[in-house]
Amino acid sequence: MVLHEDRFFDPDPAVRRVARELYEETRRLPIVSPHGHVDPRILATNEPFAEPAALIVQPDHYILRMLYSRGIPLERLLQGEPRAVWRLFAEQYFLFRGTPTGAWLDHELHEVLGVSAPLSAETAERSYDEIMERLAGPDFRPRALFERFDIEVLATTDAASDPLRHHCAIKESRWKGRVIPCFRPDAVFKIAAPGWAQELEKLGREHGAPLVDYAEFLRALEDRRTFFKQMGATATDHAVLEPYTTWLSPDEADTLFQLARQGKAGPADERRFEAHLLMEMARLSLRDGLVMQIHAGAFRNHNQPLFERFGADRGGDIPVATEFTRNLRSLLNAFGNDPRLTLVLFTLDESTYSRELAPLAGHYPAVRLGPPWWFHDSIEGMTRFREQTTETAGIYKTAGFNDDTRAFCSIPARHDLARRVDANYLARLTARHIVSKDDARRIARALAYELAKETYKL
Amino acid sequence: MVLHEDRFFDPDPAVRRVARELYEETRRLPIVSPHGHVDPRILATNEPFAEPAALIVQPDHYILRMLYSRGIPLERLLQGEPRAVWRLFAEQYFLFRGTPTGAWLDHELHEVLGVSAPLSAETAERSYDEIMERLAGPDFRPRALFERFDIEVLATTDAASDPLRHHCAIKESRWKGRVIPCFRPDAVFKIAAPGWAQELEKLGREHGAPLVDYAEFLRALEDRRTFFKQMGATATDHAVLEPYTTWLSPDEADTLFQLARQGKAGPADERRFEAHLLMEMARLSLRDGLVMQIHAGAFRNHNQPLFERFGADRGGDIPVATEFTRNLRSLLNAFGNDPRLTLVLFTLDESTYSRELAPLAGHYPAVRLGPPWWFHDSIEGMTRFREQTTETAGIYKTAGFNDDTRAFCSIPARHDLARRVDANYLARLTARHIVSKDDARRIARALAYELAKETYKL
Amino acid sequence: MVLHEDRFFDPDPAVRRVARELYEETRRLPIVSPHGHVDPRILATNEPFAEPAALIVQPDHYILRMLYSRGIPLERLLQGEPRAVWRLFAEQYFLFRGTPTGAWLDHELHEVLGVSAPLSAETAERSYDEIMERLAGPDFRPRALFERFDIEVLATTDAASDPLRHHCAIKESRWKGRVIPCFRPDAVFKIAAPGWAQELEKLGREHGAPLVDYAEFLRALEDRRTFFKQMGATATDHAVLEPYTTWLSPDEADTLFQLARQGKAGPADERRFEAHLLMEMARLSLRDGLVMQIHAGAFRNHNQPLFERFGADRGGDIPVATEFTRNLRSLLNAFGNDPRLTLVLFTLDESTYSRELAPLAGHYPAVRLGPPWWFHDSIEGMTRFREQTTETAGIYKTAGFNDDTRAFCSIPARHDLARRVDANYLARLTARHIVSKDDARRIARALAYELAKETYKL
Repeated sequence: MVLHEDRFFDPDPAVRRVARELYEETRRLPIVSPHGHVDPRILATNEPFAEPAALIVQPDHYILRMLYSRGIPLERLLQGEPRAVWRLFAEQYFLFRGTPTGAWLDHELHEVLGVSAPLSAETAERSYDEIMERLAGPDFRPRALFERFDIEVLATTDAASDPLRHHCAIKESRWKGRVIPCFRPDAVFKIAAPGWAQELEKLGREHGAPLVDYAEFLRALEDRRTFFKQMGATATDHAVLEPYTTWLSPDEADTLFQLARQGKAGPADERRFEAHLLMEMARLSLRDGLVMQIHAGAFRNHNQPLFERFGADRGGDIPVATEFTRNLRSLLNAFGNDPRLTLVLFTLDESTYSRELAPLAGHYPAVRLGPPWWFHDSIEGMTRFREQTTETAGIYKTAGFNDDTRAFCSIPARHDLARRVDANYLARLTARHIVSKDDARRIARALAYELAKETYKL
Repeated sequence: MVLHEDRFFDPDPAVRRVARELYEETRRLPIVSPHGHVDPRILATNEPFAEPAALIVQPDHYILRMLYSRGIPLERLLQGEPRAVWRLFAEQYFLFRGTPTGAWLDHELHEVLGVSAPLSAETAERSYDEIMERLAGPDFRPRALFERFDIEVLATTDAASDPLRHHCAIKESRWKGRVIPCFRPDAVFKIAAPGWAQELEKLGREHGAPLVDYAEFLRALEDRRTFFKQMGATATDHAVLEPYTTWLSPDEADTLFQLARQGKAGPADERRFEAHLLMEMARLSLRDGLVMQIHAGAFRNHNQPLFERFGADRGGDIPVATEFTRNLRSLLNAFGNDPRLTLVLFTLDESTYSRELAPLAGHYPAVRLGPPWWFHDSIEGMTRFREQTTETAGIYKTAGFNDDTRAFCSIPARHDLARRVDANYLARLTARHIVSKDDARRIARALAYELAKETYKL
Repeated sequence: MVLHEDRFFDPDPAVRRVARELYEETRRLPIVSPHGHVDPRILATNEPFAEPAALIVQPDHYILRMLYSRGIPLERLLQGEPRAVWRLFAEQYFLFRGTPTGAWLDHELHEVLGVSAPLSAETAERSYDEIMERLAGPDFRPRALFERFDIEVLATTDAASDPLRHHCAIKESRWKGRVIPCFRPDAVFKIAAPGWAQELEKLGREHGAPLVDYAEFLRALEDRRTFFKQMGATATDHAVLEPYTTWLSPDEADTLFQLARQGKAGPADERRFEAHLLMEMARLSLRDGLVMQIHAGAFRNHNQPLFERFGADRGGDIPVATEFTRNLRSLLNAFGNDPRLTLVLFTLDESTYSRELAPLAGHYPAVRLGPPWWFHDSIEGMTRFREQTTETAGIYKTAGFNDDTRAFCSIPARHDLARRVDANYLARLTARHIVSKDDARRIARALAYELAKETYKL
């Protein structure tokens, strides 16, 4: 058996016994996926997936970066013949030992796709054929999988200017799956980026009026939020290098906006403009009720030559140390005392868990802690998150789990891993008589299901 | 039974057996409390405590912040009718599951106050009545509890200008309990703070002369230290945002002092002035033997609107990243090689444990590591502290335990929890054959009792 | 028995059983020591070691700093009569309980030197005599120990201007031990340091031409690299406060070089010059194939008065927070995509493991993670390293173990401890069904032996 029934549980019998029990409590709960990057097109068209390399290897930046880091050229992975790509992946599969990517892949291959033997150079061909066979059947169409995965709701992540055609198509079809958008206006906030003017134009087009000044720009954002909300959105998302927030005067905001329109905004201008827009977003969230998410601390496209050749999201983003206490003070002083606002914070800098994030969530009514993100969405990473936040923020100021994935077929794997790790964490607390088993059971359900629904108003 | 006999111990039998043994070695040792915030008035007057909400809920910023963070208005907690406050607290008691506050409260309620059933909405009324009954009896007067808690010495924390009337009153009464002050001159160091002039005046009044220049100001500080020492103090304490230290010339020190007197000192002035005064404090410590404590890294009153309505110490202080290596260099180069100085360092930034603090303590004769502070005074926090400092600083450059509490009745809970966690840490070392059981027993006693006495010269 | 057979293994039977098996797999593998500070003279001359204090206490900055930190003057340790020094050390031996230094010393004393009883005040004299007796015999000569330790290769660390006489002498002797140099040009990079001119002159002397401009300086570095390589070197090493990298124009590089020659270079000049030279070193590494190591983040000689009296390497170096993501970007964008470059990164700031280093190694083909360094070369430190890097960088982007020691007789202790800790880490993964036992066995061999050979091209 490739997937051990007790995987990820501590071997101590007193812990493992309780971990199993708690996991039994949550393993069959529906999946709530309030933040992720699945392409809504696949659920709109419901076309069959093409073949294993395109399904599993090529869109997954976790896989690409690990193979690339061992000297395998991205050309071979992205432009190779599908079976050759799959063979290469299978040969290098040992690299994923001990990583969450390996754990997700094992689940995806054996549990979701029914591959019979552990992946390796020897089993590459057979597993390719097995997957091809599965993908041909109606049970492996995206919507069928959505239902089999028992996804109660799936949020995508969409640009402010996105017309949400796929979401419309899903709504208009008879299918009952709940797929909702999330409003992510990053591209129009980054006024020093080369593509900003183009992004602004797209936004203006959707808005139906040219965005010639800051006031109109802000109206466009507000209108788009309304449209997203009508389409089912319950949240916005903001990816920033630093979570800096500050109010600008209307004049200064417009000055920066006009500078940007002239193509003259620099990084310092962008920093202030973005800081001000985060304030505006919080203000609008209070009004329209959309939950606000901040994902801070990724230095995007760190590898410039690679970015130029292969584009974004190939595994070349690297975290930086991140400051929340001073940076968020303006926003929290203005809006953080209002329990109607929900602000979910994500970090790539684990040193902020106990130092800044748990104290902020353990004080401000508006703040919730997002689950361990990206590199930290892992067995040890989740364990550290719980151990470093629970004692200060408690359980009920966390936001439940996000799978945050682009890889549709990895969704069950990610939720299963999170439920197992949380069950094990709670079993450790129980075995040390820190919480009772009854409380642990209630907390397990909250972490696996209820907190995500509550936080994201789903 | 609400409190499990083996609580906080690892479930592994090889660890738990030894943890129990080590805990047995320390559980009945007297309590040495070298740093905390108990109001000396309660021991001076020895009046009975009023009722449960005023005793337990309202003065405890750990409790207030957690309830506030879930959207409960502070008005309801601070200005509500006592029984209503208690009911609200009891209803929300589940929020404290898995937190040290919850562990302390359980101990306080069941072990100290003899409450019979776990606190919840259902048991709110009964527990209120039970506590009221206890508080009415002579055994629950502050001094009786002090004796029952077996407190050998209790240090309070007092402003430089404090006349120490309650300490005098305790001395003058026939009662033998040892309650000593600690010299904390922060308020007169913060020359950019709005209340500085007032604080300076208070200091001048106690000193008996107006503080018109820096030289006189420094003399006042020196005199107050002498007075505090006569009153039993063995230590000073300094709360700073950054632990920056540097010598100013006497001229520059006086220039800043005069600027402050004119109400013109800004944050940069304050930073330099405070850095210089830390040097002066170390210099005076070498002379008068007072142990010097630095508590660094709390951004006080982060929540400005809340501070304006409800004042300080309501749970609105948030930590920031803290730098010790460069900041303390001036002080340590000047005084750190002298083993007559004892400098106890506290941090809210756990990333400094292994990176800066343990290396500093493992080198400079003057440096000791204070125990995990505030948010980190917890099961996981203490375990991380030991695991991240012992290998570099050893055991004997740490300062034993501080309860650091304002909540008098929580003192035994806090020491008990620390003794359990240290016993468990040592049991893990023993079970892995890193230290022998005999050594572990000696170390357990040092951590629970001896190191606090040695470090603080008690 | 002083050394327990199962030391450092978790007590849980499911973990311990596997840890033992995995350790059995690696305990007898030869020692590969690709980075360290053993003085090559001892192997060139092969003279007997003098006596215990000079062998064990006086050259070990870990021991000196711990004793000094408890108030023992360095004079007593460095200038005392050998037996008195040994007695003092033995009396204070309890300070090392729970530290890796203690674990290494126990191994060295009992396993390498055959001391019969645990070291303490009582056994000080007897142990001294026992060691003296051993050192007198031919089996305890350096080369005999080198063979008994089963060292396959030992790298020293040598200044750019070092003529490598001892390495020549070893080559010219008939002895087959492989002792190779490592090129560490730090002294000529630090243009603001007082001794720079002297260091430059030494380099010019070895180079055979005066270094009057930057171009000639660079040629000298290139020539010395060639010479080191001929003498067996496979790596360079660079100790920097910050790992800052940037290209200067040839003009600016020469301007800074000339400024330095006039004794006018300041810290900011040094920072830029060093950043540029790291770029040059990477460029040359691509050409000559030498592996590039960066050891970042030690604030050297933090204790100025102690440094002035006793010199460097007495335990007065303190780590600082370190930034890799932004600092290394220039170097990695220029050379990091080329798998022919190997760049091994070391940190003293553990918060960078999961935040910056594992993501960098898990993406850039050139980057490898050096093992936990210095203060973190310890049981808990190594465990944290694996737990915080494996999930993102995997196992195969790490560089195996470095003992990094000046203490020749501690080499087996350090490798043994690392093999035990890694075996235990892998046993934990196995017991949680994260890796299979077969995979764990393969990984254990890689960590103990193969990865060091592969990374350092040995």
